[in-house]
Amino acid sequence: MIKIKILGTSASIPTKNRNLPSIFLMYKGERLLFDCGEGTQKELMINNLRFMKINKIFITHWHADHFSGMLGLIQTMSLEGRKNPLYVFGPKNTSKFLNQLLGVGYFNRTFDIIVKELEDSSAIKEKDYTITAFEVKHNRIPALGYAFQENKRLKADMKKAEKFGLKTGPLIGKLKNGETIIFGSKTIKPKDIIESITGRKIVYTGDTQYSENTIKYSKNADILIHDSTFASHKENMDEIGHSTASDAAIVARKATVKKLVLTHISRRYQKEKEHEDPKKLEDEARQIFKNSVLAEDGMEFILK
Amino acid sequence: MIKIKILGTSASIPTKNRNLPSIFLMYKGERLLFDCGEGTQKELMINNLRFMKINKIFITHWHADHFSGMLGLIQTMSLEGRKNPLYVFGPKNTSKFLNQLLGVGYFNRTFDIIVKELEDSSAIKEKDYTITAFEVKHNRIPALGYAFQENKRLKADMKKAEKFGLKTGPLIGKLKNGETIIFGSKTIKPKDIIESITGRKIVYTGDTQYSENTIKYSKNADILIHDSTFASHKENMDEIGHSTASDAAIVARKATVKKLVLTHISRRYQKEKEHEDPKKLEDEARQIFKNSVLAEDGMEFILK
Repeated sequence: MIKIKILGTSASIPTKNRNLPSIFLMYKGERLLFDCGEGTQKELMINNLRFMKINKIFITHWHADHFSGMLGLIQTMSLEGRKNPLYVFGPKNTSKFLNQLLGVGYFNRTFDIIVKELEDSSAIKEKDYTITAFEVKHNRIPALGYAFQENKRLKADMKKAEKFGLKTGPLIGKLKNGETIIFGSKTIKPKDIIESITGRKIVYTGDTQYSENTIKYSKNADILIHDSTFASHKENMDEIGHSTASDAAIVARKATVKKLVLTHISRRYQKEKEHEDPKKLEDEARQIFKNSVLAEDGMEFILK
Repeated sequence: MIKIKILGTSASIPTKNRNLPSIFLMYKGERLLFDCGEGTQKELMINNLRFMKINKIFITHWHADHFSGMLGLIQTMSLEGRKNPLYVFGPKNTSKFLNQLLGVGYFNRTFDIIVKELEDSSAIKEKDYTITAFEVKHNRIPALGYAFQENKRLKADMKKAEKFGLKTGPLIGKLKNGETIIFGSKTIKPKDIIESITGRKIVYTGDTQYSENTIKYSKNADILIHDSTFASHKENMDEIGHSTASDAAIVARKATVKKLVLTHISRRYQKEKEHEDPKKLEDEARQIFKNSVLAEDGMEFILK
């Protein structure tokens, strides 16, 4: 199971209802955080997400709304006596900026932080998944998106197994391990029953204007969480460095993803009367890519 | 009128219901902030406090829970196009730490920040009030409390005025300006009607263990907002650098303040079942100083 919890969905400035960017991902007991805007530690607490167990943080870029919760979270982990190292990944200058941030004020850290700076196509390979960084286009500063790709998994085709009279159990396990088994009078090879299926894929862009590279790295993702700061309008998005809901939807369509989640919402869009209705972002995206949803703080996605 | 809004009341680590320390004070249209923990900008928005008009921030000390909202607030002010300078006051090293904090990441500031480092008895004198810094005792780091003292005000004793047949109006204004007036057949001097009354006083300690200096600077305050991290227990408060509710109440009694507000509450005290009841802090203080109240986020005090 992969659990994704969207902790913050606002662009640059928080609103009464939207915190600054952060996305929590849990997979096989491991807890990852993508971006860590101001207020993230409180959102982790409110959502009972056991923040002490987070072991990797991925920063998309060094604009304050994406990192300003780091100092508080790391200080809290120290006050709680954390000993396990924390891995922090980010673009060029992550090491310099993080050291500078953690040097402000009086503060005793109780654990090691291991920083790794990434660039386009850098891959963090773990036993069951790979996270690949990819360059996005945002105000000419170093900025990355991240693609979480679960490894291929071996799965028994139980319809085929039943033809041999086999049921779930240790023999299926042997087949998954690549062993040929003898069952009654039959010799069964792994390829007779076991198939390799594609792992699940989740992509988060951080902040970006429309980018071909995002399409490349989002190919066939189960979920694409994309910058969607504005509805379409006349301003020059190149200068702004963000995407419209349409931009995000075009990326989703070209990358043939399964679901698009629109996030990093400008405070221009709020439910209060004096603002524009945020629903228009979702409506706009759905004209181009049907399975689009507007992110809200606390929204959860489970991939079983 | 003086309006005080308590924005954050938690110690070191936020909880589901308590943000990190920050206190907003409004007086004659001027807006001041004391401490600026993570999440302060969102609390300012939630409480409709027009954060763009804040012109002075007072930091008590450089522990992250007291300053970690500064970067976000200053960035937001810039994104909103602020031009007016912002004054930041704090203890020794405030200039170094603030510069370091504001240098993290990519960030264009649109206004000047004027930093002034204070020490015990440093006074910021304004037309209608003075804010005096005073040394507190907290983990051997530079740490200040702040006393806001309204200047003495001239007030007409309207009972005396009526004896002369005078009513509210421009003649009272003249008396306040020190002029002697002739009213009918009577000569009225300012001292016949005008009296000077003591201004209102609000004191905030930031983090401190029990301190005689706090008593000295809190003398006769209308409101004393005091560190009250724990209920009384056997730990050595000297080492911890914080006050118990009893410590705070003894200070309040000795300083003969009018009201004590207990803040900087340990996460040990929460309303959820698995925690200790925060009410015990208030109960403990009231045994010693009756007019004690436990601070909650969003609590407001108006001095008319």
